[in-house]
Amino acid sequence: MADLAELGEAELIAQLSFFAPANQFNDDAALLGLDQKLQRVISTDALVEGVHFSNATTPGFSVGWRAAAANLSDLAAMGCLEVEGITVALAAPGHTSMPWIKEVYQGLSALLKNHGGLLLGGDCSQAPVVMLAITAIGKVAGDRLIRRGDGKAGDHLVISGPHGLSALGLKLLQDPNDPSLLQLDESIRHKAIKAHQLPEPRFDAVAALHRSKPADMPWRVAGTDSSDGLRRSLELIGNACGHQPILAEPFELVEGCCLNSGLDGGEDFQLVLALESPWAKKFVEQLPGAQWIGWLGENPGPPCWANTKKPLLPGNSFEHFNRT
Amino acid sequence: MADLAELGEAELIAQLSFFAPANQFNDDAALLGLDQKLQRVISTDALVEGVHFSNATTPGFSVGWRAAAANLSDLAAMGCLEVEGITVALAAPGHTSMPWIKEVYQGLSALLKNHGGLLLGGDCSQAPVVMLAITAIGKVAGDRLIRRGDGKAGDHLVISGPHGLSALGLKLLQDPNDPSLLQLDESIRHKAIKAHQLPEPRFDAVAALHRSKPADMPWRVAGTDSSDGLRRSLELIGNACGHQPILAEPFELVEGCCLNSGLDGGEDFQLVLALESPWAKKFVEQLPGAQWIGWLGENPGPPCWANTKKPLLPGNSFEHFNRT
Repeated sequence: MADLAELGEAELIAQLSFFAPANQFNDDAALLGLDQKLQRVISTDALVEGVHFSNATTPGFSVGWRAAAANLSDLAAMGCLEVEGITVALAAPGHTSMPWIKEVYQGLSALLKNHGGLLLGGDCSQAPVVMLAITAIGKVAGDRLIRRGDGKAGDHLVISGPHGLSALGLKLLQDPNDPSLLQLDESIRHKAIKAHQLPEPRFDAVAALHRSKPADMPWRVAGTDSSDGLRRSLELIGNACGHQPILAEPFELVEGCCLNSGLDGGEDFQLVLALESPWAKKFVEQLPGAQWIGWLGENPGPPCWANTKKPLLPGNSFEHFNRT
Repeated sequence: MADLAELGEAELIAQLSFFAPANQFNDDAALLGLDQKLQRVISTDALVEGVHFSNATTPGFSVGWRAAAANLSDLAAMGCLEVEGITVALAAPGHTSMPWIKEVYQGLSALLKNHGGLLLGGDCSQAPVVMLAITAIGKVAGDRLIRRGDGKAGDHLVISGPHGLSALGLKLLQDPNDPSLLQLDESIRHKAIKAHQLPEPRFDAVAALHRSKPADMPWRVAGTDSSDGLRRSLELIGNACGHQPILAEPFELVEGCCLNSGLDGGEDFQLVLALESPWAKKFVEQLPGAQWIGWLGENPGPPCWANTKKPLLPGNSFEHFNRT
């Protein structure tokens, strides 16, 4: 009989989607329709000690911040401009120190405060390892949504910022004396560690999307966030739209990041969007750090490079379930 | 430095409440105000393998059912008549079998279906033990809320059903040949095991509350659910209202349940309510199994017995954090 390690996360989610309404699991978060004008968006994410963080690389403040940021990023990926609040299910061993727990809550409060959200409630349980399961809730106008499947052939692909920084930051924290990293500029080191420990949900990129929309164009935005890596985001958009994401090569990677960590490192929490070309152009002009990376092709297909048409090869893609 | 086992759950929650708006943690669930007429209620609860369930006593179907029921019960305790939906953060070891996971989701879907709710979304992660963190969301009219602190001196205390059944069911599952249990009637055994494995959130009791309200009385209902035991529920209501809960002795316990498991067993998920006496009387008449158990005194104080004025002694009260 199949176990989770054999199935993998994507197949697990596909099988669990049969318990939900059709297409319910197709986006970054779920919609609770109020009316056409206002929708509530709800998203859940868990962080597990030893899987998503370790005490060696993540202080308590950062554990709380990142747990909240991962959820808020899902709200941004649906088109929310801010968060209303979060609930937190905390599970921890009895020997966990209260000062550490307070640091965790200081981290998530600091992030929430930056984006106008409240700690609404939660639950505390004993468990053999620390787990933080957070549910975030936000509002979005029903006609200003970002959906993975709303892209069309010829749409331009843009990203709200660099990929690979978070993975580089983790590497620097795990092995600061790695010879391959010694050449790195101090400012890149600092940025990379910050990207890993204190990632920002890109509500500002959603605001830039609103600002840059050409007045004569209807709202139509395909997109997701890059929590599981840029390659995975492109796959999700490509599959949902039925159009192959085609990447112009080479697009700029952060200094010190290898191509694999740029494509598969994950946890950069950037927005990956498909827009009509005039809108894409204005978006990149208006948002510092945003980049044009390619377009959606005519036909379905996996993300590929424009010149060779070869699919982007999976590198160290983050897989949630394994037996080690 | 204090750890969680030393602090205990109540003190942990008290300390974490400083990160939330004032009084935010005072009820069973949080309110997201829409307007005076409609509020959304949101509640989070986690179930951890080895803490809240074990494979010996809880089949997968029941793990899912109970996890969902615990959350839905919090919605009922706020006055919701039904649930809109839930999100599920599932964490599990890689060796977990997919058929077992499906049973879990069958259980939570079956419960949700009974109460008109949908599986909205979720997240899957690896973890050393199975953890299910569920967030439930429901609607309630702003003027039909149940709050812990809305009781007044002289209000009558009522419960929607028996206490101790779930704890008895667990005992029967853990040690079916326990000599003290051999005399038990087959129908009580069956009821107790059902109460433990397939508890029902008491939305029907909220409906009975609506039906039994005397027309000339304003809506004013204090209450909570008895997820952590009847004694704890009375404590929460008493503290929030500033009036001592006084119990008429003896009130009926289920056959085979000792007094302690009736007061401290927990997981019965009944509603414990304080109502003006005419309403309390009509409520008990209209809801089969509901019982009158006492009243709220003039002054603050811990739950006590009417004849002796002695506080209810803590028995095997469920404490979430320990070091064993």
